[in-house]
Amino acid sequence: MLSRKELFKDTLKKAAHAWKRIVELRLTEEEANLLRLYVDQPGYVDLHWGMFVPAIKGQGTEEQQKKWLPMAYKFQIIGCYAQTELGHGSNVQGLETTATFDPSTDEFVMHSPTLTSSKWWPGGLGKASTHAVVYARLITEGKDYGIHGFIVQLRSLDDHSPLPGVTLGDIGGKFGSGAYNSMDNGVLRFDHVRIPRDQMLMRLSQVTREGKYVHSDVPKQLLYGTMVYVRQTIVADASKALSRAVCIAVRYSAIRKQFGSQDGGPETQVLNYKTQQSRLFPLLASAYAYRFVGQWLKWLYTDVNQKLEAKDYSTLPEAHACTAGLKSVTTSATADAIEECRKLCGGHGYLNSSGLPELFAVYVPACTYEGDNVVLLLQVARFLMKTVSQVAAGKQPVGTIAYMGNIQHLMQCKSAVNTAEDWLNPAAIKEVFEARALRMAVNCAQNISKAPSQEEGFSELSPDLLEAAVAHVQLIIVTKFIEKLQEDIPGPGVKEQLQKLCSIYALHLLHKHLGDFLSTGCVTARQGALANELLGKLYAQVRPNAVALVDAFDYTDHYLGSVLGRYDGDVYPALYEEAWKDPLNETVVPDGYQEHLRPLLKQQLKLSRL
Amino acid sequence: MLSRKELFKDTLKKAAHAWKRIVELRLTEEEANLLRLYVDQPGYVDLHWGMFVPAIKGQGTEEQQKKWLPMAYKFQIIGCYAQTELGHGSNVQGLETTATFDPSTDEFVMHSPTLTSSKWWPGGLGKASTHAVVYARLITEGKDYGIHGFIVQLRSLDDHSPLPGVTLGDIGGKFGSGAYNSMDNGVLRFDHVRIPRDQMLMRLSQVTREGKYVHSDVPKQLLYGTMVYVRQTIVADASKALSRAVCIAVRYSAIRKQFGSQDGGPETQVLNYKTQQSRLFPLLASAYAYRFVGQWLKWLYTDVNQKLEAKDYSTLPEAHACTAGLKSVTTSATADAIEECRKLCGGHGYLNSSGLPELFAVYVPACTYEGDNVVLLLQVARFLMKTVSQVAAGKQPVGTIAYMGNIQHLMQCKSAVNTAEDWLNPAAIKEVFEARALRMAVNCAQNISKAPSQEEGFSELSPDLLEAAVAHVQLIIVTKFIEKLQEDIPGPGVKEQLQKLCSIYALHLLHKHLGDFLSTGCVTARQGALANELLGKLYAQVRPNAVALVDAFDYTDHYLGSVLGRYDGDVYPALYEEAWKDPLNETVVPDGYQEHLRPLLKQQLKLSRL
Repeated sequence: MLSRKELFKDTLKKAAHAWKRIVELRLTEEEANLLRLYVDQPGYVDLHWGMFVPAIKGQGTEEQQKKWLPMAYKFQIIGCYAQTELGHGSNVQGLETTATFDPSTDEFVMHSPTLTSSKWWPGGLGKASTHAVVYARLITEGKDYGIHGFIVQLRSLDDHSPLPGVTLGDIGGKFGSGAYNSMDNGVLRFDHVRIPRDQMLMRLSQVTREGKYVHSDVPKQLLYGTMVYVRQTIVADASKALSRAVCIAVRYSAIRKQFGSQDGGPETQVLNYKTQQSRLFPLLASAYAYRFVGQWLKWLYTDVNQKLEAKDYSTLPEAHACTAGLKSVTTSATADAIEECRKLCGGHGYLNSSGLPELFAVYVPACTYEGDNVVLLLQVARFLMKTVSQVAAGKQPVGTIAYMGNIQHLMQCKSAVNTAEDWLNPAAIKEVFEARALRMAVNCAQNISKAPSQEEGFSELSPDLLEAAVAHVQLIIVTKFIEKLQEDIPGPGVKEQLQKLCSIYALHLLHKHLGDFLSTGCVTARQGALANELLGKLYAQVRPNAVALVDAFDYTDHYLGSVLGRYDGDVYPALYEEAWKDPLNETVVPDGYQEHLRPLLKQQLKLSRL
Repeated sequence: MLSRKELFKDTLKKAAHAWKRIVELRLTEEEANLLRLYVDQPGYVDLHWGMFVPAIKGQGTEEQQKKWLPMAYKFQIIGCYAQTELGHGSNVQGLETTATFDPSTDEFVMHSPTLTSSKWWPGGLGKASTHAVVYARLITEGKDYGIHGFIVQLRSLDDHSPLPGVTLGDIGGKFGSGAYNSMDNGVLRFDHVRIPRDQMLMRLSQVTREGKYVHSDVPKQLLYGTMVYVRQTIVADASKALSRAVCIAVRYSAIRKQFGSQDGGPETQVLNYKTQQSRLFPLLASAYAYRFVGQWLKWLYTDVNQKLEAKDYSTLPEAHACTAGLKSVTTSATADAIEECRKLCGGHGYLNSSGLPELFAVYVPACTYEGDNVVLLLQVARFLMKTVSQVAAGKQPVGTIAYMGNIQHLMQCKSAVNTAEDWLNPAAIKEVFEARALRMAVNCAQNISKAPSQEEGFSELSPDLLEAAVAHVQLIIVTKFIEKLQEDIPGPGVKEQLQKLCSIYALHLLHKHLGDFLSTGCVTARQGALANELLGKLYAQVRPNAVALVDAFDYTDHYLGSVLGRYDGDVYPALYEEAWKDPLNETVVPDGYQEHLRPLLKQQLKLSRL
């Protein structure tokens, strides 16, 4: 309930306090990250640690790292990541900011030639950062060499005022009452601002003293490791956000009662209603599914890095497609799921004290940042089309696309499922998800091949390609869930519960996308009905453990921040108490009564024409 | 960017000013409603005119109307509608507030016996209203006669302070930065508050001076007319909200360019991308579809009222199911669609200046108020199950369920569609939508009949019943769109464009719910693929007129409230200018720099242990 300025100031305070504690307690990097996670409010430090420092690490030379990183590590400078512009987001190659080399002074001239070239959105830019990694078109010897990164000082280290030629500001209010309004997403314009040549990030390419553009011998594939890392984090965050929302909705559904009383007896917990279960339990299952696929991505990141060090770039395209797809599918589904959880809490979910409106507002940008979800799915689709043609040429695919090598079988197999319980068999699930994904990809490839050109076909078929990409990514998530359950799971009965959730996750997708499975002939209408029948039984089996399955996420009430999701279930007194904290309740008679209500009620509005 | 108190005060001011203008200009009721629509901010007047006055009109005796309505019409009193409680929303029969008749004083004693019986959510209750229609359990002669309405004064007409025994407050912040935070949704508790007996709304039943409970001879069906009216308004509002969002997204998609440049040429308008079209044009089609079904509902309301006056109650159940279903389906789809439009605007859609975050936050409660959307669909489903059994017994259904009488044909027909263009035929569309809806309903009925009891079966099958209800409601919307296009449509070429939108509306549903159509055997996989193929062609045909089709909604820039949706398309300068209005930009160096940023940067944080 703070104003924008108060909220921002408060965030600066929290950030400084968190840093003080990190230093005092001599926390490791990992511990410091955890502490920031629990501060749980977007702020400039996220970009400083999450983008500015990694950009210098990844794209700076050793010398540059030596110069800049110690200052960043000590917060002598605060950095942000200035890539997107008013007129350009996803299409990085279309950015307009220029960095023109002036050999007469050995400097780059940073300039914003148009309004649309204004840097726009970078977090921490508007008010907090002293420095930025700025992406701009490198121009030297009259030639445009495309987008490169530059370290640019923006504000005075003495009094924080913008340096000459630099225009800086906040881009204004955003979704939600808190959410990203604690972040100073900013605008930046350059009017011929000069920086020394050595502030170009020169690990992959350099401009020489004379102005020659030269590539270094560092392979650019090295940068992909960072991308895999960032997206792995995003998938893990999706699981976190979704499990928070599900925890609130499940707990409150066990407390809330509606209808079902006969003769004035107690009403029914809404968690017992099949309609509530059929909407909520697939989301609970998804929270676990994303957690497991996130763990697997962590392994993939290590694997990719090892291969990069051994100069083996063969699996990079697959790793890239896989992480892009998982980022897209998990964040889109999580955003929708948080809002669904809010609706599942009925009217009270609309109150900020439920925690859900803010959880939604702060989460949804994940669908757009670090790669727009639709753009990413198209990249996955492009990779799938390439794989289909490679498989046709006899190449054996590996990793998450290995199943496509099984094309002979998967193009014609028929599911052997004959009873509802047959769907409990992971092999039966895996086969139909593989067949569906492959057949959709092959259908697209065939339709594209009928078009006048590959590009035209790809563009015309793009809505279908999105669906094929989603089918492929869902298969990955289902497969990783199944594989997780082939491991040892400690705790009596835990694996059995997770198996039920795994079945629910897969079968609710089968039901939701039944059109895909039926139209590609992967399942029959009867098998689809059997899957649906089993789902109903599984919901009943999960019901008694539903609250335990969200308690297992182990979130404190403080971190959940929801009166509806309280661990002790004492929801209504908490809701009631919370209400009185609203500033409107500071007075019994509201501000404005004398001016705007009383004259109305007393028929004393001054009318101009009566 | 106002604080909660400022926002609320500002809303009081706007409401008083609007009322002043309404009086000065001697506006009719309809004109006054329009003026309030363009004020476009939730406030106490909505409930005063939309719920308090209609409740007295509908449930008050003539004498009561004569006493209370003139005061309400002149705003000598401000009224709200106090139904929902902290512990009870949808289940009105479970409300706990009591109104106990005391024959010794000829009064009702209003009381809140528990915390959960606190009235909770009523708009206008928290701070503005002087009176309320309160719903409470009527108890007389020791017997509980269930829920009835009572007119209760809450605040002093002298100084606006709560009357003795009345506790009043605001229930706190809600979704969004503005949205419903301009409304004083309130909490109300009674501690044995006495009101005269004649403040019970007595049109349908009375308590006599001696405390006898008696029914009047007014049939309670008369109340249904109001419900049909309110829901018709909600469907019309869905079309309005959706068309605003679509207008913003379509216009900005024509301005925004990304990718597609070859050799530095101009980039492609995102509206030209098939992925954008396939997400956006079905929403454009839906906005028109809801508008036409809303117009038809207006007719239905008149028809229902005429029949009520003639004491013909035969079509009431159908009218009730139809309006309940349309309210549910159109509001759910609209909420999702606004958020989809926001995402379709990329990152900038997340800024409040885009207008979309607030449009979403202010719209979503429509999914919950006036009947939770899931609860309403279950009512539709119950009606469908009844109809199926009546049809089986030879009864001929009428109105929106007339198609169910055609059961012989619809249970076994096979679509004759053989080319993509065959799907342009409205009869082909109507047949498969009718067959799908009927077969899903019949499937449910058959599965329910296998259960130990009807109630148990209904409960177990409820997730399937929801899907059957949606199929039925979508059929109604498709049918009314088709019927609208059988009328004369003025303007050259207008009908042709609407026909394309009608096809898009129906076929995108067919594609989205392909599993329904395939599993019930209404279409074949090949016919489904043909529908999808035609959709792609239709998108290309709508593209050149897309901007004209949203301009046709005729919204002013002021009403749209979106820099992205500007009529002149001059988006980027407007975005840039808007940013500087944020309070954070009042100073170049932010509040908090001296306290929380400078000490950090200067390594002068006071650490406790270093």
